This record gives sequence, structure tokens and C-alpha cells, in this order.
Amino acid sequence: MPPVTPELEDLFSFLRFASISTDSAHAGEVRSCAEWLLKKLNGMGLEASLHETARHPIVVAKNQHVEGRRTVLIYGHYDVQPVDPLNLWNTSPFEPVIRDGRIWARGATDNKGQMMAHVLGVEKTLREKGELPVNLTFLFEGEEEIGSPNLAPFLIQNSELLKCDVVAVSDTGMVAPGVPTLGYGLRGIACCEVILRGPKGDLHSGLFGGAVANPATGIARLVASLHDVAGRVTVEGFYDQVRALEPWEREMWAKVPGVSDQDFLTVTGSPTLFGESGYSSAERTWARPTAEVNGIGSGYQGEGSKTVLPAEAFVKLSFRLVPDQDPKDILEKVRQHLELNCPPGLTLEFMPGHDGKPYAADPNSDLGKAAQRALKVAFNAEPVLIREGGSIPIVQAFRDLLGADTLLLGLALSDAQIHAPNENFPVENFEAGIRLNQALLEELAK
Amino acid sequence: MPPVTPELEDLFSFLRFASISTDSAHAGEVRSCAEWLLKKLNGMGLEASLHETARHPIVVAKNQHVEGRRTVLIYGHYDVQPVDPLNLWNTSPFEPVIRDGRIWARGATDNKGQMMAHVLGVEKTLREKGELPVNLTFLFEGEEEIGSPNLAPFLIQNSELLKCDVVAVSDTGMVAPGVPTLGYGLRGIACCEVILRGPKGDLHSGLFGGAVANPATGIARLVASLHDVAGRVTVEGFYDQVRALEPWEREMWAKVPGVSDQDFLTVTGSPTLFGESGYSSAERTWARPTAEVNGIGSGYQGEGSKTVLPAEAFVKLSFRLVPDQDPKDILEKVRQHLELNCPPGLTLEFMPGHDGKPYAADPNSDLGKAAQRALKVAFNAEPVLIREGGSIPIVQAFRDLLGADTLLLGLALSDAQIHAPNENFPVENFEAGIRLNQALLEELAK
Repeated sequence: MPPVTPELEDLFSFLRFASISTDSAHAGEVRSCAEWLLKKLNGMGLEASLHETARHPIVVAKNQHVEGRRTVLIYGHYDVQPVDPLNLWNTSPFEPVIRDGRIWARGATDNKGQMMAHVLGVEKTLREKGELPVNLTFLFEGEEEIGSPNLAPFLIQNSELLKCDVVAVSDTGMVAPGVPTLGYGLRGIACCEVILRGPKGDLHSGLFGGAVANPATGIARLVASLHDVAGRVTVEGFYDQVRALEPWEREMWAKVPGVSDQDFLTVTGSPTLFGESGYSSAERTWARPTAEVNGIGSGYQGEGSKTVLPAEAFVKLSFRLVPDQDPKDILEKVRQHLELNCPPGLTLEFMPGHDGKPYAADPNSDLGKAAQRALKVAFNAEPVLIREGGSIPIVQAFRDLLGADTLLLGLALSDAQIHAPNENFPVENFEAGIRLNQALLEELAK
Repeated sequence: MPPVTPELEDLFSFLRFASISTDSAHAGEVRSCAEWLLKKLNGMGLEASLHETARHPIVVAKNQHVEGRRTVLIYGHYDVQPVDPLNLWNTSPFEPVIRDGRIWARGATDNKGQMMAHVLGVEKTLREKGELPVNLTFLFEGEEEIGSPNLAPFLIQNSELLKCDVVAVSDTGMVAPGVPTLGYGLRGIACCEVILRGPKGDLHSGLFGGAVANPATGIARLVASLHDVAGRVTVEGFYDQVRALEPWEREMWAKVPGVSDQDFLTVTGSPTLFGESGYSSAERTWARPTAEVNGIGSGYQGEGSKTVLPAEAFVKLSFRLVPDQDPKDILEKVRQHLELNCPPGLTLEFMPGHDGKPYAADPNSDLGKAAQRALKVAFNAEPVLIREGGSIPIVQAFRDLLGADTLLLGLALSDAQIHAPNENFPVENFEAGIRLNQALLEELAK
């Protein structure tokens, strides 16, 4: 392991918190992480404050705001995804290590590594110059991985505190190592969980099999009803509001390095690619909507066999959405589809989950151009302009509630394993992130 | 709790062993249970022996065999099913209690309660009369719940030791409380597990969703391919060897108490019945084959949501078979069906599991009539003649390897919750089982 710098030491401390927001058993770790962050920001000379929400706290930090300067809000999140299946991690997810030039830990890329680069960029500028060229507001939440349920209310209640001209977020991807990437679009999301119930309890599949519907079979039939054989979503009206790809986007994306079909095949390791026909992998993930199963379960999960006819079955679904689909509208269509396709002999419970609107902005506005210049400084290369397959619902909320567009200055590589075992972040991206923050504030000040 | 008799004390001791055969973590408990049984049988004055197998031991016990008497082999199994989901049990599965006239514990009905009734019937006859009217062989195994992999080889190797004129087994159902039931047919079984694999690791469903096949979606589509909308199995050739129901069977079964469609609805608690059209619930479970999902799983199983595109998915399937389907032939047809229907972008691993042939015999043979008389003595009521939905593969092996037919003298009620939480066995059935054993040996001696 190479010598650890003070910057890496800060990041490692931050990564050691198991701040898994979805699991209530980890609520204490989430809070400790927020408190550590608060102390770090105050120690840098910013005025930081911790704000309670119904679940996990929000941390805000500002420098002394001065009239006449541009106000930049930098958003990040200190919560992380769960770590299971734990046995597939090469090293412990909350004991960061450096190996092969990368930092390995849950949250290394998503989002602690990228977020901390901005914090440390500001610290460095303050140390070097004594002040920042802009009015800065850091806004860090602990609920991004559960859909930011309390952030939009917080924006509404604190619109004066959070007033800004532009938002910057590093929570998206770079198309390839060393290729600076400005994102101008994101997919939205709509989640739900479905439970099918049959018999009042688990039954012996020999004594009762054949006479009553099996919820595990039923959930499979229900999920199978969501796509046609060509991979298109069959929910009625699902594609009605989908904005078609612009010819210039398809042309540009075809030339972007690191996102060819072959790259997707290599990175994912899938036997072959599979998706909606007529689109490249980049187009399928950046500009086309999907229906995905994130979890399915019923009956015996252990070693060997158990001849049980289970009493219930669940599926966790998420739909990735593109402009101009509306998550609430889609969830309602999904609910109708599922209820219409509920197999006979079973009852269906539909539980809507978190959602977020899709987003798209003009990458060549004044602010977009400033971001492109900062990316060029940080990486010493021409940036590419892309959309993103992931969802940051709050980006739409920034536009709706603060009236500000968001610059997506992603530092994540496609093999960062975010949301999966062995998440990692290159040390060089971490360092570039620090430079990016310094250049960005300078360019946005112009 | 009523005063516990010496017989119930024996049964409770037997039930306290967590002899779960499928889970290697419980191998020690399985062995301890066999050793307890060995001691009990030797203590009664039988000559008992413990026989090692590749996994769990077999216990054999005999009285002094005398030339010219009929030889009766009584088979049972001392292993039990797993107990999950544990949280649904009202009392601890391996701490038997009596409540509402029933014994509550894993194995209470399947098979420890029924098996121990035979042991204690023999003990009582020996105590009362000093000897048995027949040559008796007890054969108790510890692998029934995992498909008896080592019993058939044991029969082959010990055909002289186990030579008999007839086999008796109490491991099936009574149609209703107080209605003695002779079973003359059983469904067979063929089990398998399928794993679908896609990307080399779990992926972020936003970044990659749409570009690669999702194994959880794929397993659902694969399972959905097993049935048509009417509930018929769609595996090619699946019904080719199915023996049609005889008119006399349909006529008789329509009059059997406790197995009407309404009874099935009440016992299972399903919202409605569902199965192959044109058949009653009794016919569907006793004489028609099925394809059931016993377990399905992929992706995130915990609280909340996780936007993951899982790397793999599994399903555990079992097929209940009827005369004259052949399990090996069916598994091969299933394998072909699954491989043919493997969704694009995924690889399929097919793992055949345990299997057993279906069985049917003549309930009105000499031996069958003796069994009917014994049932009438034990319950003081006319017995009904049925088939069974469950599978006891070894019954076919007794016919093939020992040349003996099997009398199915079931004592299980339909709400016994076997293979499920809150398994139970009425004290009165336990006591009737002791009487049945005594009467059976007497009737078979004639």
C-alpha cells in the first residue's frame, strides 16, 4: 500500500462509517458519519450545521457569502448502499484499503469519494488563498440511497439558506479513465414492491400441490408479464411520454470512448448483451426506460431441497425513466398492469416505493461551458457530453425548488462496482476531483 | 397441559432431536436421534442395530423370527424437514407441547409421531403378551426428507435381513379426523434446481439496466414457461405416460369426507382454488401431476430497496408424478424444456435433485383387506380407500427390491402443518396408532 496522504486519511475515516441508510439497524452509524462530517467542515473554517429530518440528518456548510458573487451549491450524500452479498467482497467493505491504485470500500465512489474530493478541494483553496472565489454552500444528505425522502421538504423549508445560481454534483460516471465527462441528463426512477399471497401458511407441496395457486409460480408469471420477448416493457402506455433521442446525441455518443457495446460486454461480463432492439448499449442505458427486478424471493432459500408450497412471494421492482416520463404516472400504470395480471388464486399487495423524475439540461449554457473548462483543467483533456443511466431525483428538485440547473461532473468509472461487492475508486480520480473542485469554483466565478 | 403418559414422554424425547437431514449443520442431531432410537428398541426386547450409510444412519430392529409366520416390515423415518420460517412458529419446533389436544413440534406428524405409535404398539403387545404374532422388522431411516439416497442401496445389500411378505408405513394422511384411511397410491417426485447467470457480478441497475439481461427477470420468465394460463404443465411430453383416473375412483373419492373442494379451501386458506381444469381438488392432488416452485431467489432480500441488477438467480423446482410417469424421463424432459426456454443473455445450470417413482397397488388384496380390518378395529369405523398426493419413493423400492407391496396406514390430518410452521399431531391419533399397530400385526398373522 502506498503512503497514505492526509487527504486519503480523511477519506478513509469517512469510509469507515457503515452509513447504510436503508437498514434501520445502521441508523446510529449514519448519524455518527454525519457528525464526523460536521466536525470536519467546521474545522476547515466553514460554518457547518446539522439539520434533523424524520430519518437521517442533513449537513449544510457555507463560507461567508458576499453580495455580487455567484452562489454555488455542491451536493453530495454520505449514506451508502447495503453490502450484501458480503462473502463476495475481497476485503471488508468498511475497512478501506488501497490496492492496484484504487481505494476499495463501500461508498468509495458512490458517493463518499467524490463528495470528499469537493470538501478537500475547498479546504485546499482556503488553505492556499484564504478564501473562495464564490459563495459556496455544501449540502450533504444521508438518504440518497433510499430516494431522498426528506431532502425536497428541506429545500422547501430552507430555500433562503440554500439559494444558489447553480448546483454541482459529482455522483455520476466518466465514460473512460482520463476522459472528463459532463452529464446533462439522468434517468428517473420509480420503485415498488409487490407481495402475492396464497394459502394462509406454507403447505406441503405433495399434499396440496395442484389444488391451489403457488405464490412463487405466480410472482414469476407476474414478472414475466412485464416484458415481451424482445425486451420491451409491456405495461400499457409505458412509452407514451418517452422523448426520442436527438440525431446529434446518437452521433456524438457513437464516438464517445469507453461506452461501445464491446465495452459494456467487457465491463459487465454478461454472456451476451440483451436489450431493446434498435439501440446501442449507451442509448439503452442513457435514453431508454427499463423495468428491472432488484430482488425476488419465495419459499426455501437454504441448502438442499424442501418440498414446500410457500404462502407468499415478493418482488422488488424499479423502473428507470427518461424525459418526459412521470414517475407517479408510471407507477400508477404499473399498478394497473400488475393487478390486471395477478394470477388466479392469489391476492396482490402493491407498495409504491421511492421515485424521482428524469432530468435533462443544456450542456452548452454559460454554466455548462464553465464546467467544461474546469473539467479540461482538472484532467488536461477535452470533456465529452453524455447522459447517465442512473437516477439522482434531487437534481430535478433543485430545478423545481431552487430554480437552479445542475452540473453533473462525474468521477465514477464503469467498473467502480457501485451498489455491488468490491466497490472501488481510483486514487487518481480522487486527486483529479480535488483539482476539479478548485478549477470549477474559479471558472464559475468568472 | 394434560398429564403426560409414558408413551407421550417417549414421543417427546424423540421429538426434541432437531434431526433435520437436509442441513449438514444438523448431522450431529440426526445421529443422536438414531442412537436414542436404537437404545429404545433394544430396551423393548427387540434386537436393534445401527447401520452406517454415506450420510445418516439406518436403524433396524427385529423380534425373534420364527419359520411359518408372516414377516411384516414396518418402515418409518426419524429425520424431519427444516423449520424456517422460524418466526411463524407459536412454540419452539423442538420443544414439544400439548395444546388443544394436539402435540406441537416439528416431526409430530411427519414422521416421528406416527412412527413412534408403531414402536409403542409393539412394546405394548410384548408387555401384554410376551411375544408378537408375526415376524417383525422395523426399518427406520434418517434421510426420507432428502429423498432416501442411501435406503435403496441398503435394501439391495441387506435383502436377506429385510426379507418380508408385506410392508406397513404410517406416513400418509387420514381424510378426516376419525375416518380410517387406507392409501393405495402415491405420487412420485422429481426435483431439480436451476441457476441462471448473467453479469459477472451484481451491477447498478441504473448504470447497466437495459443493456444486459437480468437473471431475476430471466428466472421469472423461465418459471412462467412451465405452465399455460389454465395451470397445465407445458413441458413437452409431460402428460404422455399419465394413467387416466378410473371411473370407480372418481366416484368413490367424490364421497370421501374431508376432501371436498370446500375442505381444501378451508384447510389451505387460499383466496380461491386453482388447478388443472376438469378435476376436483382430491383428483388434482392424488392423481394428477404438477410442477411446483419450492423456492426462488435473486437480488436484494432485505428491508427497503436496493437498485441492483443481480448476477444470478435460482429456482428450486419439484414435479409430483403419477403412474406411469418415470421421474428420470420427466427430469430429462424438464431439462430440455428449461434449456430451450433459457432467456437470451443468460447461462443456465441445471442440477437434477432427488426423485422417486409414483406407486399404486390393489387395496382389495388379502393383505389390503387385513389392513382394512385393522383400521376398523383401531378407529371403530369403516375405512376409506384413497391415493395420496405426497411422495414416499421408497414404497416403490420395496416393491422393486423386496418384492413386497406396502400398506399405507396414514394417521396424518390435513391441517397437521407438515413441512410448515406449527406442525402438530392429535393425541388421539397417536393413541389410535398404537392400537392400529397391535390390530394390524394380529390381522396380518391370520
